[in-house]
Amino acid sequence: MRQSSNLIPTLREVPADAELKSHQLLLRAGFMRQNASGIYSFLPLGYRVLRKVEQIVREEMDRAGSVELLMPALQQAELWQESGRWYSYGPELMRMRDRHNREFALGPTHEEVITSLVRDEVKSYKRLPLNLYQIQTKFRDEKRPRFGLLRGREFVMKDAYSFHASKESLDDTYNKMYEAYSRIFERCGLDFRAVIADSGAIGGKDTHEFMVLSDVGEDTIAYSDTSSYAANIEMAAVTATYNKENVPAETLEKVETPTQKSIEEVSAFLNVEASKCIKSLLFKVDDRFVLVLVRGDHEVNDIKVKNYFEASVVELASVEETKEIMGCEVGFLGPISVSEKVEIVADHAVQAMVNAVAGANEAGYHYKNVNPDRDFHAVYTDIRFIQEGDPSPDGQGVIKFAKGIEVGHVFKLGTKYSEALEATYLDENGRTQPMIMGCYGIGVSRTVAAIAEQFNDENGLVWPVAVAPYHIHLIPINMKSEEQKELGEKLYKDLLGKGYEVLMDDRAERPGVKFADSDLIGIPVRVTIGKRAAEGIVEVKVRNTGESMEVSVDELTNTLSSLLEVK
Amino acid sequence: MRQSSNLIPTLREVPADAELKSHQLLLRAGFMRQNASGIYSFLPLGYRVLRKVEQIVREEMDRAGSVELLMPALQQAELWQESGRWYSYGPELMRMRDRHNREFALGPTHEEVITSLVRDEVKSYKRLPLNLYQIQTKFRDEKRPRFGLLRGREFVMKDAYSFHASKESLDDTYNKMYEAYSRIFERCGLDFRAVIADSGAIGGKDTHEFMVLSDVGEDTIAYSDTSSYAANIEMAAVTATYNKENVPAETLEKVETPTQKSIEEVSAFLNVEASKCIKSLLFKVDDRFVLVLVRGDHEVNDIKVKNYFEASVVELASVEETKEIMGCEVGFLGPISVSEKVEIVADHAVQAMVNAVAGANEAGYHYKNVNPDRDFHAVYTDIRFIQEGDPSPDGQGVIKFAKGIEVGHVFKLGTKYSEALEATYLDENGRTQPMIMGCYGIGVSRTVAAIAEQFNDENGLVWPVAVAPYHIHLIPINMKSEEQKELGEKLYKDLLGKGYEVLMDDRAERPGVKFADSDLIGIPVRVTIGKRAAEGIVEVKVRNTGESMEVSVDELTNTLSSLLEVK
Repeated sequence: MRQSSNLIPTLREVPADAELKSHQLLLRAGFMRQNASGIYSFLPLGYRVLRKVEQIVREEMDRAGSVELLMPALQQAELWQESGRWYSYGPELMRMRDRHNREFALGPTHEEVITSLVRDEVKSYKRLPLNLYQIQTKFRDEKRPRFGLLRGREFVMKDAYSFHASKESLDDTYNKMYEAYSRIFERCGLDFRAVIADSGAIGGKDTHEFMVLSDVGEDTIAYSDTSSYAANIEMAAVTATYNKENVPAETLEKVETPTQKSIEEVSAFLNVEASKCIKSLLFKVDDRFVLVLVRGDHEVNDIKVKNYFEASVVELASVEETKEIMGCEVGFLGPISVSEKVEIVADHAVQAMVNAVAGANEAGYHYKNVNPDRDFHAVYTDIRFIQEGDPSPDGQGVIKFAKGIEVGHVFKLGTKYSEALEATYLDENGRTQPMIMGCYGIGVSRTVAAIAEQFNDENGLVWPVAVAPYHIHLIPINMKSEEQKELGEKLYKDLLGKGYEVLMDDRAERPGVKFADSDLIGIPVRVTIGKRAAEGIVEVKVRNTGESMEVSVDELTNTLSSLLEVK
Repeated sequence: MRQSSNLIPTLREVPADAELKSHQLLLRAGFMRQNASGIYSFLPLGYRVLRKVEQIVREEMDRAGSVELLMPALQQAELWQESGRWYSYGPELMRMRDRHNREFALGPTHEEVITSLVRDEVKSYKRLPLNLYQIQTKFRDEKRPRFGLLRGREFVMKDAYSFHASKESLDDTYNKMYEAYSRIFERCGLDFRAVIADSGAIGGKDTHEFMVLSDVGEDTIAYSDTSSYAANIEMAAVTATYNKENVPAETLEKVETPTQKSIEEVSAFLNVEASKCIKSLLFKVDDRFVLVLVRGDHEVNDIKVKNYFEASVVELASVEETKEIMGCEVGFLGPISVSEKVEIVADHAVQAMVNAVAGANEAGYHYKNVNPDRDFHAVYTDIRFIQEGDPSPDGQGVIKFAKGIEVGHVFKLGTKYSEALEATYLDENGRTQPMIMGCYGIGVSRTVAAIAEQFNDENGLVWPVAVAPYHIHLIPINMKSEEQKELGEKLYKDLLGKGYEVLMDDRAERPGVKFADSDLIGIPVRVTIGKRAAEGIVEVKVRNTGESMEVSVDELTNTLSSLLEVK
């Protein structure tokens, strides 16, 4: 491709509102432009990267036995009403009416459409399992679109759905998808982890998120420093054990703490470690109230509370509710003399505490020398967030934290959608059964941004070969020099003929502009044709390492083939 | 691909509501399913064909120097308001509001988006010309979606837009696009014509439509029986000349025609040829009234009326308007004694008429012996539809008619959008100029249907090799036979290894079902593994010709490579 016929509008300035490196650089290097909040055009270079990622996804999905199709973006409201998500999805679901006033959703995901399709076409266990995928533009009306392609309102997804007659068959496909995802992100050159995740609102269980490690990620990953264990921080089980301090239990004592409410304030005021205080929080779990206790240096993990109670909604009780139920304001809550209506659930760490501090359920007072099982009774379970330094749940090493960008998600849906939409099959005995489903998503455009986020330096983007918009940036420095121009044209044809993707900067720009643009764009190898053109000598520079060498035209192919090998 | 893991739901019955062969067969062969009126899912086989057509389009666009990008489907209302199309496009434009109540269009086309993009990024003649394209899902809320993929509400388009600093540059790109389109439809195997078309509501001039010839097409093409001339019937100029009959003009005579209104009735009643009658129609042309005259055996072409008057709206006057203006009811109109407020425009053929019949502008009466230039005055121009047998406007041969399905459109837009959206550049003299634009569309999903419409027989679809979902349909007849199954697996791997796309019917179905499905699906070559598997003999059958032969496994590759050559 000749740069003069392309649209690569580079910018010298960092665009306002672009906080992340990936966002800034994809704009500055002319890979994309914003059309509206969270809505972007992929310019020619950006589109090439998008298609390369798409193609990697496609190849690995095909290899894993998934079959590609394409469902519509416009989805009838009736389908979403059948699944119930028309009502529960909220304003993220973009809705519209056609000229006949019929309601449609603009698909953010396709569980309803694929389930109804398979329901209508597949009736027997003989046609199962099925694994179908599409690569498609999706719509989600994010409240706060941001970070460029990382959180947009119109984006490209690969979504796959599998249908099974047994859990074993689902497990098998799930594992194949897990492996395919690992290969996809490896081929993209990404540093990522597959982490155990929460099943969230989509329903179902057993799920992994594929997280690209990045300081700008919105999710925290807890991983083992010695094994492959990794989990979304919300999902990491705490397996720490606690030894009770070998001191005698002393007498319970009520002390005045006039304005001290937080663990920090109370522990400072009473001059005890936070780990000697009991943190007591009143939660509303569906329709009942639960007092949750953790050690003062720990944090309550409400996902664990939710899972423990198998609840739909878990939230902190309001100020009013707290007053009504506990007879006391937030900040002085504690586990002693609590109404029988309130269940008390405590973290394992609390059970090992001796002579602890806890709220007295009376404004301005705390207790000292609180001893579990003597002064109150509770159910003990794992209810706190894991922390750095905790043992890894797999028994190997200790936990560290990292930030991640979620780029993929594999998920065992179970029968949530097949039951709602009556997608059943006849089993070997002629009995009607709901299909068992899995779903598997990859944020394709988000992956482009994640790659940009991991591969850049102070001069611009640094694309891995497998997803680079072009392999070679061919730059005749001076288009007015006949020798340079001629050699440029010759090499351009030669290299294209050898199957390389070449961008030739045939613009009449100053060398400084050409080089700055080239660094910004980040094509893996630059071939510069300069003053030694007449001798048949060009400069080859590797974007990634900065390594540069003079190479004779005869040797060029050898040099390039080793530099551009895809690992 | 193994058929057992695929979703190819064939149907024995012709689906209700599917009138066209292509629509019926794409449904019956399991290539697609309807989700809502005019909205379809491409099932795996259909999606493969779609992608093959896409890839042909992409290769030829790239080869012609167009650059691919991807713009969003969600388009801000403000842009459409700038161009004015927010108000003029009508209910075909799907509109919606986001969570912040901002209005968006779902893109049916992208003139506004691309023009604003190029406006913002390109400022100098040095960056022109530019030719950009995308392949994308579009939305248009058709009043009457029908014929399956031929007229849908969500469909795949290739749309390209070019920007120029001179008309010569536009001409150059227009010609390249014209040639690229010709190659695209040739490669798809289609029988098509590039026809001169009307510029219609999109604005601009110089335009060709690419029409796939088909009896079910909605457009009529007028083409020369000896040259390459072809035009949309509305656009075909009439170049016929007429000789005045060498008889004396007789005296004008009013005759009673009590209930005879149509040319048919009047000519029968008065016992004269229709070609001896003058057909008089009152049109409302923008704000004025025009009486249009053609010979009784000719039809008024209102596009020609519109173009003659450079009008925005041309329509027949209503019954009330006719009474008011002509003082007479429709059916008795004529050119004699017409109010001076009414302009009379007549076709050239009328001027050559002698002693003609025409309405008397009085209910129940016509005139005989009407002679143009003696009894009335008119402006003479080409105002009628061309007819079969008319001379071809290029002077070669005579006109014939054919029906066509429009699959592509190339169009010189001029400065309509660049002026509305202020997309200007600085020319060599530093002067601000509006960019000159062209646009070039291909209905990609419609092309799939057009191919299906041209390539089928009584047993099903008959795909050309270049767009077939697979090259080879490999069918072990009896999956319970170890020999057949084993040879099937061996050939499957061998053929895949040689780069063929193979669908293997590994289902435990009866031979009759497998063969019927195979014919319906229409893969170009079928390789059947039957009783002679043990001897290493298979049957090769060509879907297109029905030709069938027994081939030894050793010769199979040679046989296939000659059968599957893409012309």
